[in-house]
Amino acid sequence: QYSSGVRRVTLIPGHGIGPEITVAVQKIFEAAKVPIEWDEVDVTAVRGPDGKFGIPQKAIDSVNANKIGLKGPLMTPVGKGYRSLNLALRKEFDLYANVRPCKSLDGIKTLYDNVDVVTIRENTEGEYSGIEHEIVDGVVQSIKLITEEASKRVAEFAFEFARDNKRKKVTAVHKANIMRMSDGLFLRCCRDLATKYPDIKFEERYLDTVCLNMVQDPAKFDVLVMPNLYGDIMSDMCSGLVGGLGLTPSGNIGKNGALFESVHGTAPAIAGQDKANPTALLLSGVMMLRYMKLLDHANKIEAACFAVLKEGRVLTEDLGGNSTCTAYTEEIIKNLC
Amino acid sequence: QYSSGVRRVTLIPGHGIGPEITVAVQKIFEAAKVPIEWDEVDVTAVRGPDGKFGIPQKAIDSVNANKIGLKGPLMTPVGKGYRSLNLALRKEFDLYANVRPCKSLDGIKTLYDNVDVVTIRENTEGEYSGIEHEIVDGVVQSIKLITEEASKRVAEFAFEFARDNKRKKVTAVHKANIMRMSDGLFLRCCRDLATKYPDIKFEERYLDTVCLNMVQDPAKFDVLVMPNLYGDIMSDMCSGLVGGLGLTPSGNIGKNGALFESVHGTAPAIAGQDKANPTALLLSGVMMLRYMKLLDHANKIEAACFAVLKEGRVLTEDLGGNSTCTAYTEEIIKNLC
Ligand SMILES: CC(C)[C@H](C(=O)O)[C@@H](O)C(=O)O
Ligand SMILES: CC(C)[C@H](C(=O)O)[C@@H](O)C(=O)O
Repeated sequence: QYSSGVRRVTLIPGHGIGPEITVAVQKIFEAAKVPIEWDEVDVTAVRGPDGKFGIPQKAIDSVNANKIGLKGPLMTPVGKGYRSLNLALRKEFDLYANVRPCKSLDGIKTLYDNVDVVTIRENTEGEYSGIEHEIVDGVVQSIKLITEEASKRVAEFAFEFARDNKRKKVTAVHKANIMRMSDGLFLRCCRDLATKYPDIKFEERYLDTVCLNMVQDPAKFDVLVMPNLYGDIMSDMCSGLVGGLGLTPSGNIGKNGALFESVHGTAPAIAGQDKANPTALLLSGVMMLRYMKLLDHANKIEAACFAVLKEGRVLTEDLGGNSTCTAYTEEIIKNLC
Repeated sequence: QYSSGVRRVTLIPGHGIGPEITVAVQKIFEAAKVPIEWDEVDVTAVRGPDGKFGIPQKAIDSVNANKIGLKGPLMTPVGKGYRSLNLALRKEFDLYANVRPCKSLDGIKTLYDNVDVVTIRENTEGEYSGIEHEIVDGVVQSIKLITEEASKRVAEFAFEFARDNKRKKVTAVHKANIMRMSDGLFLRCCRDLATKYPDIKFEERYLDTVCLNMVQDPAKFDVLVMPNLYGDIMSDMCSGLVGGLGLTPSGNIGKNGALFESVHGTAPAIAGQDKANPTALLLSGVMMLRYMKLLDHANKIEAACFAVLKEGRVLTEDLGGNSTCTAYTEEIIKNLC
């Protein structure tokens, strides 16, 4: 349904360096003749009727209408009543699977050169349930919530993702030796799903073991699926192996919508100075295009970006270069073909 | 009180390769004239009056009497009614602080050469509370329990450890942006303690950020203190950076006792073949000697072990050598001076 016609996409530039990296992505998409029309909305916390701060209604309406969005970094003010706007968005649209691929990039020197893993993170519950109580003074409990429904759908997502992307293996990452019931349930759902995908290898590994093996030999892993917090950790760690959050994309996928986002911060220290690196947002945009089945556009843009990184002549300062965001953007545009 | 006279120490050889690496440590300690007498006990799961499997009473009595122990890997049978014996020991003796140093070793080639971090892990509660419920079919909750008491004592332990070991910085690792109440309480306890240690730098970092920074630049970190599960992950990850669990020691410390242990597995595939690497258990023994204030013995044994690793001529197979456990042990003994 996505392959023809111009589609509207919600665009949330965000805060700090958000607007400038967003402009960079818009320029590159335009040069690549991507058939989308941006519906730009602001997501700055507003106080709701309950006194809590949340996402402005206009932004919610836009995502609900367009069912797809691209988002820069958001600043959540610190203090009582504020919840992370990033999380609020995932929750609002029930974006249950978070996909974070990390692949070694030619031209980006790190200690590793053979990383190619995708973290699939359950995105709606687990340690992020938000349910906490102070039982008595100085005794707090936080509830990790694992449901069969959410575990099954993310497990299914992981196997479908593996199949669609010609991946060979799915590893379920867990601590069912400790959290026998909750991680046990998650693991059982993965096992059940695995039987429906005989073409894909399935393995189960302890979270601590995966952390150890990942830093020693990332080639051991392919697609990883896990509860919310584990995915938060694992995806950042894997991102570190390939160069950091400035280079790695992220997609939040639900049944009725999807939101692609850079997961680095707002970098207020360099905001407005044309120094920001737009790569993570651009590659998130590329993931979005693939999701929309605009494969040619996705491939073209990705190839241009990779070519510029590989050549290493025009790079932003965070990558050891001395080019502006604008110059880097133009260099990518020159490489579109 | 520890520096003179012969002290009895509980010795738990454990399963799989446990007995052979234990013999290696005993030989080295004897050659180094360490003034301790081993009280060897078996810790194989026995069925208690409640039908559950647990630690044999003789082992409990021994640790209670000696207040200090060294332990090889334990095999916990899989199945209903079995709980990890490793955890049971930590719980039984209220060993509230788990100390896991990871330092790059001369002669051990890894991608990193500047790792020198110590994970201090809260060892009694958090995600390891064991409290879980199935609310309705397919909906499970696991409770993460954080108390002021346990958080304070482990925070205090971390700062005392830092001071005793001339460390410069303590980093509290948390996700208080998500688990505001539980990790928030833990973090507040760390902050409070920090004010009493003006000589030690204190910083707070998100767990995901620490994972990312650790793989990119471990020199950013020094002593890390964190809730139970985070410590489980972080210590394995750091161990991976310096060569793995076969090389890194661990100590579980309480008010009334301490248990030092290798945290690698029982390696049944090579058990009984004189191929096992005793280094992790030996270095755990060295930690134990320091704890007992037998500093000269500790330094001498550690230096001998490091010298053999550095020379690289006599190494076990896991380190790329072709020597037996016995030959490696003898080589360390030759290097004692
Ligand atoms: C910003 C923060 C709430 C978020 C998380 O913990 O999920 C971030 O770390 C991420 O990974 O997207
Ligand atoms: C064996 C297992 C229960 C244990 C843990 O999870 O703590 C181990 O991983 C460790 O780190 O000592």
